[in-house]
Amino acid sequence: MNPKKLKKLLEEVKQGNCSIDEAMEGLARLPFADIGAAVVDHHRALRTGYPEVVLGSGKTVEQIVAIVEELRRAGGNVLVTRVDSDKATAVCRQIEGLEYREAARSLVLLGEPVEPAGRGPIAVVTAGTSDLPVAEEAAVVVELSGNELFRVFDVGVAGVHRLFHRIDELRRAAVVIVVAGMEGALASVVGGLVDCPVIAVPTSVGYGASFGGVAALLSMLNSCAAGITVVNIDNGFGAGYAASLINRKREHNR
Amino acid sequence: MNPKKLKKLLEEVKQGNCSIDEAMEGLARLPFADIGAAVVDHHRALRTGYPEVVLGSGKTVEQIVAIVEELRRAGGNVLVTRVDSDKATAVCRQIEGLEYREAARSLVLLGEPVEPAGRGPIAVVTAGTSDLPVAEEAAVVVELSGNELFRVFDVGVAGVHRLFHRIDELRRAAVVIVVAGMEGALASVVGGLVDCPVIAVPTSVGYGASFGGVAALLSMLNSCAAGITVVNIDNGFGAGYAASLINRKREHNR
Amino acid sequence: MNPKKLKKLLEEVKQGNCSIDEAMEGLARLPFADIGAAVVDHHRALRTGYPEVVLGSGKTVEQIVAIVEELRRAGGNVLVTRVDSDKATAVCRQIEGLEYREAARSLVLLGEPVEPAGRGPIAVVTAGTSDLPVAEEAAVVVELSGNELFRVFDVGVAGVHRLFHRIDELRRAAVVIVVAGMEGALASVVGGLVDCPVIAVPTSVGYGASFGGVAALLSMLNSCAAGITVVNIDNGFGAGYAASLINRKREHNR
Amino acid sequence: MNPKKLKKLLEEVKQGNCSIDEAMEGLARLPFADIGAAVVDHHRALRTGYPEVVLGSGKTVEQIVAIVEELRRAGGNVLVTRVDSDKATAVCRQIEGLEYREAARSLVLLGEPVEPAGRGPIAVVTAGTSDLPVAEEAAVVVELSGNELFRVFDVGVAGVHRLFHRIDELRRAAVVIVVAGMEGALASVVGGLVDCPVIAVPTSVGYGASFGGVAALLSMLNSCAAGITVVNIDNGFGAGYAASLINRKREHNR
Amino acid sequence: MNPKKLKKLLEEVKQGNCSIDEAMEGLARLPFADIGAAVVDHHRALRTGYPEVVLGSGKTVEQIVAIVEELRRAGGNVLVTRVDSDKATAVCRQIEGLEYREAARSLVLLGEPVEPAGRGPIAVVTAGTSDLPVAEEAAVVVELSGNELFRVFDVGVAGVHRLFHRIDELRRAAVVIVVAGMEGALASVVGGLVDCPVIAVPTSVGYGASFGGVAALLSMLNSCAAGITVVNIDNGFGAGYAASLINRKREHNR
Amino acid sequence: MNPKKLKKLLEEVKQGNCSIDEAMEGLARLPFADIGAAVVDHHRALRTGYPEVVLGSGKTVEQIVAIVEELRRAGGNVLVTRVDSDKATAVCRQIEGLEYREAARSLVLLGEPVEPAGRGPIAVVTAGTSDLPVAEEAAVVVELSGNELFRVFDVGVAGVHRLFHRIDELRRAAVVIVVAGMEGALASVVGGLVDCPVIAVPTSVGYGASFGGVAALLSMLNSCAAGITVVNIDNGFGAGYAASLINRKREHNR
Amino acid sequence: MNPKKLKKLLEEVKQGNCSIDEAMEGLARLPFADIGAAVVDHHRALRTGYPEVVLGSGKTVEQIVAIVEELRRAGGNVLVTRVDSDKATAVCRQIEGLEYREAARSLVLLGEPVEPAGRGPIAVVTAGTSDLPVAEEAAVVVELSGNELFRVFDVGVAGVHRLFHRIDELRRAAVVIVVAGMEGALASVVGGLVDCPVIAVPTSVGYGASFGGVAALLSMLNSCAAGITVVNIDNGFGAGYAASLINRKREHNR
Amino acid sequence: MNPKKLKKLLEEVKQGNCSIDEAMEGLARLPFADIGAAVVDHHRALRTGYPEVVLGSGKTVEQIVAIVEELRRAGGNVLVTRVDSDKATAVCRQIEGLEYREAARSLVLLGEPVEPAGRGPIAVVTAGTSDLPVAEEAAVVVELSGNELFRVFDVGVAGVHRLFHRIDELRRAAVVIVVAGMEGALASVVGGLVDCPVIAVPTSVGYGASFGGVAALLSMLNSCAAGITVVNIDNGFGAGYAASLINRKREHNR
Repeated sequence: MNPKKLKKLLEEVKQGNCSIDEAMEGLARLPFADIGAAVVDHHRALRTGYPEVVLGSGKTVEQIVAIVEELRRAGGNVLVTRVDSDKATAVCRQIEGLEYREAARSLVLLGEPVEPAGRGPIAVVTAGTSDLPVAEEAAVVVELSGNELFRVFDVGVAGVHRLFHRIDELRRAAVVIVVAGMEGALASVVGGLVDCPVIAVPTSVGYGASFGGVAALLSMLNSCAAGITVVNIDNGFGAGYAASLINRKREHNR
Repeated sequence: MNPKKLKKLLEEVKQGNCSIDEAMEGLARLPFADIGAAVVDHHRALRTGYPEVVLGSGKTVEQIVAIVEELRRAGGNVLVTRVDSDKATAVCRQIEGLEYREAARSLVLLGEPVEPAGRGPIAVVTAGTSDLPVAEEAAVVVELSGNELFRVFDVGVAGVHRLFHRIDELRRAAVVIVVAGMEGALASVVGGLVDCPVIAVPTSVGYGASFGGVAALLSMLNSCAAGITVVNIDNGFGAGYAASLINRKREHNR
Repeated sequence: MNPKKLKKLLEEVKQGNCSIDEAMEGLARLPFADIGAAVVDHHRALRTGYPEVVLGSGKTVEQIVAIVEELRRAGGNVLVTRVDSDKATAVCRQIEGLEYREAARSLVLLGEPVEPAGRGPIAVVTAGTSDLPVAEEAAVVVELSGNELFRVFDVGVAGVHRLFHRIDELRRAAVVIVVAGMEGALASVVGGLVDCPVIAVPTSVGYGASFGGVAALLSMLNSCAAGITVVNIDNGFGAGYAASLINRKREHNR
Repeated sequence: MNPKKLKKLLEEVKQGNCSIDEAMEGLARLPFADIGAAVVDHHRALRTGYPEVVLGSGKTVEQIVAIVEELRRAGGNVLVTRVDSDKATAVCRQIEGLEYREAARSLVLLGEPVEPAGRGPIAVVTAGTSDLPVAEEAAVVVELSGNELFRVFDVGVAGVHRLFHRIDELRRAAVVIVVAGMEGALASVVGGLVDCPVIAVPTSVGYGASFGGVAALLSMLNSCAAGITVVNIDNGFGAGYAASLINRKREHNR
Repeated sequence: MNPKKLKKLLEEVKQGNCSIDEAMEGLARLPFADIGAAVVDHHRALRTGYPEVVLGSGKTVEQIVAIVEELRRAGGNVLVTRVDSDKATAVCRQIEGLEYREAARSLVLLGEPVEPAGRGPIAVVTAGTSDLPVAEEAAVVVELSGNELFRVFDVGVAGVHRLFHRIDELRRAAVVIVVAGMEGALASVVGGLVDCPVIAVPTSVGYGASFGGVAALLSMLNSCAAGITVVNIDNGFGAGYAASLINRKREHNR
Repeated sequence: MNPKKLKKLLEEVKQGNCSIDEAMEGLARLPFADIGAAVVDHHRALRTGYPEVVLGSGKTVEQIVAIVEELRRAGGNVLVTRVDSDKATAVCRQIEGLEYREAARSLVLLGEPVEPAGRGPIAVVTAGTSDLPVAEEAAVVVELSGNELFRVFDVGVAGVHRLFHRIDELRRAAVVIVVAGMEGALASVVGGLVDCPVIAVPTSVGYGASFGGVAALLSMLNSCAAGITVVNIDNGFGAGYAASLINRKREHNR
Repeated sequence: MNPKKLKKLLEEVKQGNCSIDEAMEGLARLPFADIGAAVVDHHRALRTGYPEVVLGSGKTVEQIVAIVEELRRAGGNVLVTRVDSDKATAVCRQIEGLEYREAARSLVLLGEPVEPAGRGPIAVVTAGTSDLPVAEEAAVVVELSGNELFRVFDVGVAGVHRLFHRIDELRRAAVVIVVAGMEGALASVVGGLVDCPVIAVPTSVGYGASFGGVAALLSMLNSCAAGITVVNIDNGFGAGYAASLINRKREHNR
Repeated sequence: MNPKKLKKLLEEVKQGNCSIDEAMEGLARLPFADIGAAVVDHHRALRTGYPEVVLGSGKTVEQIVAIVEELRRAGGNVLVTRVDSDKATAVCRQIEGLEYREAARSLVLLGEPVEPAGRGPIAVVTAGTSDLPVAEEAAVVVELSGNELFRVFDVGVAGVHRLFHRIDELRRAAVVIVVAGMEGALASVVGGLVDCPVIAVPTSVGYGASFGGVAALLSMLNSCAAGITVVNIDNGFGAGYAASLINRKREHNR
């Protein structure tokens, strides 16, 4: 419809049925969306190569199947996060080629090979084993977006020596994602040991005055001085996505 | 008055004017406070050797002078915390021998020499220079309660190497007090490096989502697994006092 | 690997293939972790005699079995906290000699006898019966760390006389742990009656404006003046551990 | 106006110019306020004998003078709360017979003698000296409402023996008002020692995690089992007023 | 034991084996609890006539049965609050004469007739039907404590006319309990219409920004000026108990 | 009863058995409610045309059936909100003509045709699919209140182009309801694009630091400058009702 | 620039130098802003007749003068909110015709007469005198936007009769703005008495647990059922603006 | 000392006075800090080229002068943030070459030219003029760290067209910093329009329910899906630093 209207207007200009001033005015009167929205949309192509991501929680098996099928038709890879094991089994039964990564609670559909897109490896660091699901959610995004990934798990601050065993490894990373619930402090310590961007993900594990991740969130926000930025509680996806953007090779001919 | 009533009752028992059963009943009817309170009071003598402590904030110069004079008469040492410099000058002008420790914002009256009472040295550790006044408040209590004291200042987590320079020193301590506002994580890290009790003091320095010390408080509470306990925000006095109690030499013949 | 690298460097020094200055420089270039982490690790030996502690909540039966088996091999005692009765039964079926202490919701593996390590008895005090599981968690840590233990249960502030019946008993303690949810005030009152360190544990029992233990936590933090320190809500383990550290006999020849 | 309309309607009924059914309908159409409001107003007469109370904070000297003058004309006693010393001096200069009670930060105008109205004495109890202004605000309301009053000040929980010295005195009270900022626990303890209604007033004194009285408020709310009720933080007036209502002699012929 | 020690001491006084001064000293050394606690206990007799109250939530069927049996033996009436229907059935099967009041979620054991103890009727007012269980909990306490009771239910502020239909009834009350979750305002409005003490109970019903009763709690605290006092969220028992204390006939010969 | 009393009084006036002054006084003594409440009630008739609305959550099948039956007898339409699918099926089985709108979780009983009552169309806008149930609750209220309705769903801010596709449509609306949980910002953006009143509804979807809708609520409240007003979290009904009132055609002859 | 580019493109179409397909493509490549932004801007003309509003707080005298001068040049009326008296005097000295409305803390520049634009009168209602500045801020916006205005001040809920005196007046309003800090309940009560849209404005007056307006905000949000919507704390401007939008006469030929 | 000890050990190895095994053991016994800390320190050299940053708030003029002088001696550039104008004047008087950037409230000492270090330009975007100081703090860090910088100021969401005017400019950026207090939504909208990393900085401007930046913080955290990360409230420095790290050219030969 919008192309039609535009085409018609331009044709009238061409045929002299419409002066340029009239066309200018007509253009201004065209429904905004017809012109504007398409242009906004346009830039999203720049993000090609990344998987399409669907938040699985709160969606039924049927809804997930429908969305994945639709996205598959459009080509590219698909990632469905926050899918518990039962739901995953039911969805996988209906979609061929869909794979469930249990640790990441995620469904992955690899329609095309993931092309390397990162400048350096991305490290995912956790304080405790209970932070693992969020860390793996970050990891799967990092990998599907074309980055080399390595894991440095279970290196809490209270036992800071475990972290030091892995320090040289850590320093190889181009971006570090730190995932921690009880020990928000880990982001500070890691931030003080590496010289690359650090993304901190508070998790909602813990009890008592951890307040569902708020204690870790505050702890992380208060140590931002050293180049640390923070995403929402349990937002493994967001951290993985931001890390991928940061790590992305890009031509700067803009 | 209460001794009088008691004495009278006992005399009547002695003189046979009152049977033992009557005395028993009479004793039960004696105003509770007359008997009970004195006994409660009694045990406080066990705490001798510690200074009398007065919270200076919210008190006028006149009130502080009056209280200190009264305490001096009772003998022993006196500590007035949270006194700003102007008020301190005014108070000192009226009380001979009173000394103002500016870093600790405290007035000290040494009526008698401080006798050594501790089992080992107590360390006071801070993350940043802005945590200093609270740390010095803890330090003055520690000293006046008869403990050896040493300071490990400005060893934040983000620059964890500064802490490591002082690690052997830290490990000498019998008790460690960690004072931190922006970096509540410091308590965790220290707790993981020493094997003695650690008392954490959140401070209200910092900005943004530090919420007047709440972020540090939560961070500290959530790392309690390693033998760390916490006192109220800015409560340097409380930390120093608790550390002194922990460190106190005691005969366990109870 | 790290010993190998070090050995090689030292051998080259010995054989004169490497000057001392070169060795100094080489040492500085050695991966940090190889040197540092081991040293950090070293000091943990100081804590021998304490049980290895595993947080059971959020772990599967299989995970708990695996960890306990591994720790058993290393020798020493093992304590698994926060294990509900069903999970405990399943774990016990697979590990010989494992004992479930239901009141403390904890699994205990006594690989070796607990050796006395404390200076005096530790008291665990509760306000109400619903504070019991947290109190028993503290108690089992206290016992396994080699301390004499006694319980003073159900002595709430609202009925302060119940507390007074036990006051002489309380005064025998070298450390007191106060566990309370609805009556955070209990820590204040106990702190005013004894002259030893008091550790307060807020619990998440209660309803309405108790906010999962926050009311008790705040109440306890605000009464810190008398030598009281606080651990996280429901952190019975942390309180027991801190009390054991405080109570530990130690040679101060450092 | 409203009486006029009503009168007119009734006159028309009397004169037969208006049938009863018409009058019924007319009455239903009368502006609501004309009938309702007066009736609502009516019952306030029941509260005679109590002073008129004005919240002084946020009002200018001129506004206070104007209001007090107006109330004086209406007769009875006047109480202006939350007036600082400077403002009070300025107001007193303009109104004869006005008295400033500094401890209570209140202006009092005794237009008529206060008549005894209470069933028993009311006790005002405080934990610390900083709770005094709120306590005195409660006290002045209690007195001006015709109650016998006694003060039990500075009997904090941490030093519970000070409270016990006064226990018999306390038990004489018909209502007890407990005012406390740092030690919200005091309400619990007092509530457990007396058998009359207890009104708890949290105060905003204190620092750190006292959060402007919130810690005390929560502590007091969580000890409500024993017949304790709570008013807003620093609301000495409200506590005094509620205590007076509770203590009021009343004929129950309703 | 304590009577024995006391008796022995008094006998020695009587027989002259112990001077009065020695007895005085001996008395001071007697374990505190032996003397004090009994006296504290003493005053609780003043509360006779009230039911023994047990908080049922968090207790097993067996625990409730055991406690009720024990209390029955001591005589008097028993009230168990917060018992859901299933648990109640199980308990009732084991204890004869126990009655379940479903609306109040409470078990009642009437061991003896309830004697009238109140000065006037107590009204329980609710805003909505969802506030009913809390209101009925208050009501059952009010009744078992010997008060006349009447209910004014479902009179929310948004439809203030429903309240006005019941206003004369309300004004008969000696004490009013207002129970409301979504409409904390109801306490204010009622407080403005009656001249007796009003106790407000916020309830945790509601959704969104009601925060489990916190909105209602704050609303009620902020309207305390008119003689309203507040109890904890959902604390129907506390409100009923406080109202009974306020309404209690008492001889003021103290 | 009340009409009877009034009638009797008026009859006595008519018959001269009661002077006008006496009647005036008698009227003042009439129970307030009898006069006032009816008048208050009166104005509610102005709201005719709107459905009767029942909050379904927390009500049993029996309660809902009873209420709906009663309302049906009174005529008009009935809307029951917050009814899950199982409960709805059970209720529908017992009431003929009752229809379940699953997307809106609402039961609708159309007793009479909905008459057009609005000045213009009302738009319901959502950010994400999880906001749908709240949006549909608003929609059903809007429709049953006689308004033209259109939906602009799934137009989140992060993909602002989707919103622009619908902008001309949006600008047709007389009132816009914006429903959003994760993207409270949507209300701001919409408010900046239209020139009609905007009602924002935060929803409790989302995770982490969304705090059950609080983040969206705050975001919406902070963008109120542009004519946006806010209702409670998840309060689709309230938004629909307010929008209907705003959109209502009215004669302004008042 | 943007018109130029567009013109050039159209001219090339006209002259046949550019095919329609090429033009289509070219249009898509045009910088988004050039097309879109102008169109977005366009609709703001619809809001003519309203004053330009400037938030005065946080701006210097110079900044305010500069902005007002610039807006005056553009014609129309100007309103500067949140200007204290001193700043206002300084600004007025520099801008002729500027008027300071002290009660509203606002500067008003009437460049042209305010044309009537509302469908009915707008009422501004306050609970207490301290809510006045916010109410007057709302009032000045209402007036400058061309609405009839009336004030119903000082009609708190605790004295609900004062509200009833004004009820008929209130019912004349097309929109009601309720401004209240301590008595958020007022919005509920008013909402239950009128049948037009009600906008509630919480204010930050009050003390204790009013938390700077949060208590009132929550109270208002929780009474949204009756067609009430809420704006930010102290946002008198927002309320006035939203009320004006709601009340605006509009041709519905869209 | 540490080099000495090391040297001695190595010399003994060389001279055969110490076997390699003994040396290994000796190395393990060397004070941890001597080895570890230096190594930790080592990596900080990687950050050369960045200015030394000092937090000015809470420091006296003397302290700032001392620190800056010391840093100047070490060479490189110095940045002192959060310095108000008065303090800045005083400091500048004492240090030659120090420049005050008022908009950024920062002191800058350019000891050496800033070398280009970034991959692309960094954009700093603000919603309103009151966000400016925080934005300029970010800007000065960005510039001193060797990045091209451009500003896109005053492009709030409520007037989304202003943002669109600048969209092509924005899309040139390699990293975008979004600074907003009232309109946290701006981060979401920008994040949806660009394809580079976005760092969001909430600011503490605003009033009412903005809670010192918390509303903006939450809004920003909840829109993290699109590659947005967040720093602490008002933390312009942290955002600038993190953006510089992200934008830094780096050889990935690690």
